Amino acid sequence: MELDWLLAPPLPEAMPRQRVLYLRLREAILSGRLSPGTLLPATRRLAASLDIARNTVLFAYEQLTAEGCLQADRQGTRVASLALRPAPASSDPRPPAAALRLSARAMAAWAPEPAGEVAALPFAPGTPDYGAFPFRAWRACLEGAWRDAGWRQLGYAEHGGDPALRAALAGHLTTVRGLAVEPAQVVITSGTQAALDLCARLLADHGDTAWVENPGYLAARVAFALAGLQVHDVPVDGEGVAPSERDWCDHPPRLIMVTPSHQYPTGRVLPLARRLALLERARQAGAWIVEDDYDSEFRRAGPAPPALFGLQPDAPVVYVGTFSKTLYPGLRLGYLVLPHAIAGDFARATVQAMRPGQGIEQRALADFIRRGYYTAHLRRMRARYAARQLALRSALKAAFGPAVELSGGEAGLHLVMWLPERISDTEVVKQAAEQGLGVRALSSYTRAPMRCNGLVLGYGNLAEGTLADAVRQLARAVRSLSAGKNGAVRGRP
Amino acid sequence: MELDWLLAPPLPEAMPRQRVLYLRLREAILSGRLSPGTLLPATRRLAASLDIARNTVLFAYEQLTAEGCLQADRQGTRVASLALRPAPASSDPRPPAAALRLSARAMAAWAPEPAGEVAALPFAPGTPDYGAFPFRAWRACLEGAWRDAGWRQLGYAEHGGDPALRAALAGHLTTVRGLAVEPAQVVITSGTQAALDLCARLLADHGDTAWVENPGYLAARVAFALAGLQVHDVPVDGEGVAPSERDWCDHPPRLIMVTPSHQYPTGRVLPLARRLALLERARQAGAWIVEDDYDSEFRRAGPAPPALFGLQPDAPVVYVGTFSKTLYPGLRLGYLVLPHAIAGDFARATVQAMRPGQGIEQRALADFIRRGYYTAHLRRMRARYAARQLALRSALKAAFGPAVELSGGEAGLHLVMWLPERISDTEVVKQAAEQGLGVRALSSYTRAPMRCNGLVLGYGNLAEGTLADAVRQLARAVRSLSAGKNGAVRGRP
Repeated sequence: MELDWLLAPPLPEAMPRQRVLYLRLREAILSGRLSPGTLLPATRRLAASLDIARNTVLFAYEQLTAEGCLQADRQGTRVASLALRPAPASSDPRPPAAALRLSARAMAAWAPEPAGEVAALPFAPGTPDYGAFPFRAWRACLEGAWRDAGWRQLGYAEHGGDPALRAALAGHLTTVRGLAVEPAQVVITSGTQAALDLCARLLADHGDTAWVENPGYLAARVAFALAGLQVHDVPVDGEGVAPSERDWCDHPPRLIMVTPSHQYPTGRVLPLARRLALLERARQAGAWIVEDDYDSEFRRAGPAPPALFGLQPDAPVVYVGTFSKTLYPGLRLGYLVLPHAIAGDFARATVQAMRPGQGIEQRALADFIRRGYYTAHLRRMRARYAARQLALRSALKAAFGPAVELSGGEAGLHLVMWLPERISDTEVVKQAAEQGLGVRALSSYTRAPMRCNGLVLGYGNLAEGTLADAVRQLARAVRSLSAGKNGAVRGRP
Repeated sequence: MELDWLLAPPLPEAMPRQRVLYLRLREAILSGRLSPGTLLPATRRLAASLDIARNTVLFAYEQLTAEGCLQADRQGTRVASLALRPAPASSDPRPPAAALRLSARAMAAWAPEPAGEVAALPFAPGTPDYGAFPFRAWRACLEGAWRDAGWRQLGYAEHGGDPALRAALAGHLTTVRGLAVEPAQVVITSGTQAALDLCARLLADHGDTAWVENPGYLAARVAFALAGLQVHDVPVDGEGVAPSERDWCDHPPRLIMVTPSHQYPTGRVLPLARRLALLERARQAGAWIVEDDYDSEFRRAGPAPPALFGLQPDAPVVYVGTFSKTLYPGLRLGYLVLPHAIAGDFARATVQAMRPGQGIEQRALADFIRRGYYTAHLRRMRARYAARQLALRSALKAAFGPAVELSGGEAGLHLVMWLPERISDTEVVKQAAEQGLGVRALSSYTRAPMRCNGLVLGYGNLAEGTLADAVRQLARAVRSLSAGKNGAVRGRP
């Protein structure tokens, strides 16, 4: 029998001959190319004909015998008879497996969000200034954590996360955000997406309604839809989320995802009376409020609006924060703060649902906070981002006229520039992308019947040197679409 | 008006006076203790009576005014009238919010698994030998990754993960596990739990049936139940998972979670004919097979059974692996290998569902593999764990008699010691726990009507010095329950 094809080229790189021989022989048997009962050549003879060591052949025969593909009898080694050998692939009449597709919910949850590829472009929202990160201090904290690492740091995380980090964070939130938080209320997560996913699965059941803001944070929709929740859009007005009586009555929520202190992406700030009203109604509805206090660390001067969390004792509010912007996104650390009544159960359920770890990074971060690096970094970045925002505001007014409507900027890393109806934001974004800008369309955060037309302009990574150029390119993109009119744009009246 | 209580002790530690004043004043207003219209003392006077700087009072007044809690008029600063101030907490007639509980699925998904606290105890399953980890080489790789870090490593991960890691892993799986894997088929995850969770949400819809092995891996149940899947138990026999005709007909699966090469926890190895039958039936049923090839890196000498993944071209199989045991659990890196037809979509959906990151760690791991540290570490650990297993087998036979039934151990980090009915495994575990042993009851992995009675004995962290003592303590625990009979135990015939 001619078996030279067993080692015919092309041979996969970096794979031992022995493995190739084994795999090709197995495939020939499973596909039926070598039929049951076929007597194979003796190992010595096959080795000689393939010009390889006999052990190589022996190994392949042994392995395939152990697997049941070959069997030895008095004549030698034969192809075994397998009850369920599949039909040869070439003449396989079966359709491709019906299963080779994503689930319906995965396909439905698809958010029209560009990949991380644009993260480094000017105006890309949500991108911090990587260059300003205090690498030296952070790496010193990491090295310290490695030096002291024991099985607790190398193993799965404890319930709720590293105790030192929970304590450091509780202290930080108390001092800086005015929240009376105890360490036992803090649950460390691997970022905001994980936090929203946990809220969806641990606080709501399939078919429950989850409210999201419209326009709003796209990734929240994904988390809720994948968890089987009914996603209901609640409009945002000039002061933030604005549920109507019909929303409360026709779509009673189990989860209410809000960004009251700096609505994402419009930057609206929800007034206190409306915060209290929301709390009251949520309590009556038996709903959880999920308060994403994103970017609150980068507030400009002036009092921060009080978080919903802590406004009332034992209110059904979960507070969500992240280190993705204050440190770097790839770190994958964030946190939840929960009412006492549920914090312990939630922490235990988190361990079951996620099996968290990252003990080294958690310990390093605790150290980073405790040694004051975190506060110092925030202080520095607050000033830097405020300066960038001011510069961006001036440049936009210079380029588009003083009537250009900007919103947001009380906190965070982006501004919204509203556009008049006649200039489509998606068209601008398309034009701008061709010039290498990472600007995003406000309409892509918005769902019908709500209509928003504008640009979400990140300035986190917009260094002073590139700002003027970026605005000039943006103005060109907008003007090319406002066709002959003057460059002044004005959004909503 | 007497406002001295505003700064009365006890004062929270580490909180500035200004913050305490603000918080207490706000709470008094929101709770109704200070009623609407109340005129507050002038800042100078209040500062004097509290013996603090006037600016401290000014700040609190300003912040509360900005929030709408206070308002200034010609007479001074008054408590504002808030439409929706809640009733005072003390006389609050409302029941506690109905929402302050976990979701039904979170409560139902609870696995009776002990926390990470026992991970360091002798016999704790799934615990690698932390001390043997090549810290120096790993930290050198981490340092290299930090040196070269750009925004790609610090930002969110690219689709599927770091390209260098996907390539290194594909090469490793091809060479070592005989799988013909291309980098585009690899999706990096944050560990096995994340991988199972992704399979549940991205490959199955609410109400779909997921098969799990019985006894089996408890955390898989949790992932599937939290994703809204119907979990169906399929019995394990002496050769591994053994679905009956009734399982296929009455509970047609969408997901089939299996550990064919080393059943968890019994260690049974599924024969090739049954693997092929499973593939064939899964294809007919339109089901995905989720193949967890856990601990295959620690195989003892002898041919590894072929993975289901790659047995047939385009089979509906997802291959799951992790670095939790080969490196350390807290690293939180694992991977999926998918058929070409779905790999790209799955990678994109993973970015949406999880927003993965850990670019530094991914890059370091790619380097660790490429430089040969990974293979060398596996080789060393394979020998070490094999020696520990041999030692444990002898010690168990010496302590419990030569007829003691042990299973597993072809690969991995634990053995199963079967117990006769008369000795309850949960009772043994209770006794053993009192002596500081981390042994687990086989029955805790098992669901009715299946019955298994035995001990899951991890030896990953069982250094030679502690083994003899640990077995002696275990024997004492077993003997105390076999009440006067001789120490020999024998499980199933």
